[in-house]
Amino acid sequence: MLTIGEIQQIVLKRLEKESFISKPASLYEPIGYIMSIGGKRLRPMLVIMAAQLYGKPYESVIDAAIGVEVFHNFTLMHDDIMDQAPIRRGKPTVHQAWDINTAILSGDTMMVMAYDHLLHSRSANIVEILHTFNQTAREVCEGQQLDMDFEKRLDVSIPEYMEMIRLKTSVLMAAALKIGALYADAPKEDLDNLYCFGEKIGLAFQLKDDLLDVFGDESKFGKQTGNDIITNKKTYLLVRCLADADMNDRAELESWLHVHDRPQEKIDAVTALYRRYNIPEKTNEVIEGLYQEGVGYLELVKVDPVMKKPLYDFTEALRLRDS
Amino acid sequence: MLTIGEIQQIVLKRLEKESFISKPASLYEPIGYIMSIGGKRLRPMLVIMAAQLYGKPYESVIDAAIGVEVFHNFTLMHDDIMDQAPIRRGKPTVHQAWDINTAILSGDTMMVMAYDHLLHSRSANIVEILHTFNQTAREVCEGQQLDMDFEKRLDVSIPEYMEMIRLKTSVLMAAALKIGALYADAPKEDLDNLYCFGEKIGLAFQLKDDLLDVFGDESKFGKQTGNDIITNKKTYLLVRCLADADMNDRAELESWLHVHDRPQEKIDAVTALYRRYNIPEKTNEVIEGLYQEGVGYLELVKVDPVMKKPLYDFTEALRLRDS
Repeated sequence: MLTIGEIQQIVLKRLEKESFISKPASLYEPIGYIMSIGGKRLRPMLVIMAAQLYGKPYESVIDAAIGVEVFHNFTLMHDDIMDQAPIRRGKPTVHQAWDINTAILSGDTMMVMAYDHLLHSRSANIVEILHTFNQTAREVCEGQQLDMDFEKRLDVSIPEYMEMIRLKTSVLMAAALKIGALYADAPKEDLDNLYCFGEKIGLAFQLKDDLLDVFGDESKFGKQTGNDIITNKKTYLLVRCLADADMNDRAELESWLHVHDRPQEKIDAVTALYRRYNIPEKTNEVIEGLYQEGVGYLELVKVDPVMKKPLYDFTEALRLRDS
Repeated sequence: MLTIGEIQQIVLKRLEKESFISKPASLYEPIGYIMSIGGKRLRPMLVIMAAQLYGKPYESVIDAAIGVEVFHNFTLMHDDIMDQAPIRRGKPTVHQAWDINTAILSGDTMMVMAYDHLLHSRSANIVEILHTFNQTAREVCEGQQLDMDFEKRLDVSIPEYMEMIRLKTSVLMAAALKIGALYADAPKEDLDNLYCFGEKIGLAFQLKDDLLDVFGDESKFGKQTGNDIITNKKTYLLVRCLADADMNDRAELESWLHVHDRPQEKIDAVTALYRRYNIPEKTNEVIEGLYQEGVGYLELVKVDPVMKKPLYDFTEALRLRDS
């Protein structure tokens, strides 16, 4: 049985070896670029770990695992255009380093490459695998659309926010597990439980991201904190604070959303409001609850508990991460 | 056996009935819009005609046929952003009627929907069908990239131009035939011959488009002629005229490419140069040659010649079209 460290190394080595370059270079170079600038590679690890639960060797799902990662990076490439983000993982985004047209078309090509990779890992369940992938891909688009729609609204409720991040972030983690298990011919009930496990830890993962952006340790987080506050990003922290604050504090918080200069002052004031309403503690509580729910689903998966160790380790690593 | 008229009606009725709308509306409304504003629906017809060669009823491939049309419209939605086109089929383009972000994300969703539709038509050959589709989808992206790269170059050769339109336009018509035939379990040799047939008539189709844009009868063509000349679009006519003209005329033609006012004068002057070098006649000659080559491949397909009648009729309709 492979440990999470070994699985991560396998994914990284395969990504290093894989050439995403073809002709015309103007189309494929941005693909090689975005695939090389890092990331946690969580989704391909989930594919491999789910298959391993049933003794399926990583070699038979590594292509599919890479396909899921290519799809994830495609969504980042297009999201960065839509969000006008100049930087991703400390490097210029593709539409910044090249141009918008390149980022659109190279992204489109990556989506096709993702399907190609999924087909490379042979399976009798390929139709169900692709149905799962299609539904997930659509949901990820729907999540991004909701995220953009929410930018224009101040009245986003907590359930609406949770549904948005479920679609935008967590269904792909859930699908990565289900797809890995489908390649390994897992029973239907396990597929559902693995999916629910992924959905819960995916939600927790995103809330932790929201939290780290404001309260993370900059030296560990690797980027400046407070960016979400400066850009008025709808995060769990903001939505929760708008919901929990009294009328005066809510008015103050809303007024800061109209401030576009004085970034440090804005960060300090909004952070103070978050602290006043114990938003970090409340967010952590929700995160812990989600991890517990997720682990509950993992417990239901009908394989020798010993085989689940990498997934427990993975969950714990996400839970304790500070970057 | 269904005639081309009947097949077209089947496609049109199915598209009318199909709802592309789901939630969030902001994501799906542009999809319903682009799918409703018309088009010749050639590609879904090709899927159905190819399947019919082998007695496969249209019902069993109609979903796949619609999938190919959805994919085609996805490429139009993204191409229109990249080409900054304000109008498509007499209506505002999606990025114009909504915005660029919407056109990106709704387009992405359409690509996923295309795969979904392909999976809906069940087949034992689904993996090969999807491999064919993937390769084609990548080639279409490569063709669009070459098209954009060519906009910045004056030295595009005729073979380079032909390869660009092969990728951008004709491989999808070729793949539509091959995919239809794959659903009908056609033998390998027929798949290849149908593909080559589609590739040749697809090239001829694009050259005819280039020709109609300048020399079409406006009352039949339904749009203003000369648009490609005004926008300096690299067409077969332009590339061929640059290749055939003497030094002086080539210099004159190139100088017109730098003129951005005086549209009617530009159209008249460039059209006169095209006439001086018999570009319409030469283009028609190439088109006729391509149709003959195409039909040669269709003849090789090993089914009762009677069954090929719709494909011959289709080819003839394309050949004689004036819009």
